[in-house]
Amino acid sequence: MSTFGELANEVVNNSYHKDLLRLSWGVLSDDMEGTGLMLMANLFNMSPESRLKFGRLGHLSTGRDNSKLRGHSITLMYALKNFVDALDDVDRLKCVVEKFAVNHINRQISAEEFGKIVGPFRAVLRIRMGDYFDEEIVAAWAALIAVVQAAL
Amino acid sequence: MSTFGELANEVVNNSYHKDLLRLSWGVLSDDMEGTGLMLMANLFNMSPESRLKFGRLGHLSTGRDNSKLRGHSITLMYALKNFVDALDDVDRLKCVVEKFAVNHINRQISAEEFGKIVGPFRAVLRIRMGDYFDEEIVAAWAALIAVVQAAL
Repeated sequence: MSTFGELANEVVNNSYHKDLLRLSWGVLSDDMEGTGLMLMANLFNMSPESRLKFGRLGHLSTGRDNSKLRGHSITLMYALKNFVDALDDVDRLKCVVEKFAVNHINRQISAEEFGKIVGPFRAVLRIRMGDYFDEEIVAAWAALIAVVQAAL
Repeated sequence: MSTFGELANEVVNNSYHKDLLRLSWGVLSDDMEGTGLMLMANLFNMSPESRLKFGRLGHLSTGRDNSKLRGHSITLMYALKNFVDALDDVDRLKCVVEKFAVNHINRQISAEEFGKIVGPFRAVLRIRMGDYFDEEIVAAWAALIAVVQAAL
């Protein structure tokens, strides 16, 4: 199993994946709020057990009418932007991923649990990328998500 | 004393302040990392007692060589971007500020303690804005910071 540093290096050194991350981020970030809400809704639908880790947010089926879910969803997107902006500097990527990991560790979210986001993310990419969707884009995001998992 | 909702409304309804926030954010965000590190360094210098709330970060005098401080500083800037992007929608501003507040409440940072960031922020604005600095820009940021304080 690769270490945190090795996985971060792989992301920073993969120019093709970085192009795909930036290209798809440009599309995803066009509607920060809508994309974030879609991702969280997909997570709750595809991995219902994940709902147990979001007790703070209250009722999860109300979408943007739930201000806590809305705030979480939007803020999550800014974390992704933080990662995407760090793709050319492995130390920067590592330090912002580790900062992101702190609160998830505090909430006792395991690497395995966090990895449940890949399927929901894939579903978001399918919708948002349309004809430009392909599995290599998912692989690029999964590689970035694997860095977060390794920090948990 | 104004409530959280009243303070958020004041920010969203003050077009002049919003212009100043966006203008100055454009300058501050040109170097997300450098600005974030400068802000934190100013905080630790101007309010040494604040260091007690950052025990997790370890030794605070090492700047960007401290990866935890670096990660915190960069991530803080993305929180500010999150707020600036929400200035036209009071419910959005409230929900992202409340999400931001959660971790600070968990760290038992009071409204009074959080308000200590205004002086350090003013010092950052002085440096970054140069000849374009004026006190009304500080007032605009202080009004936004007051929304966060009201959520703590």
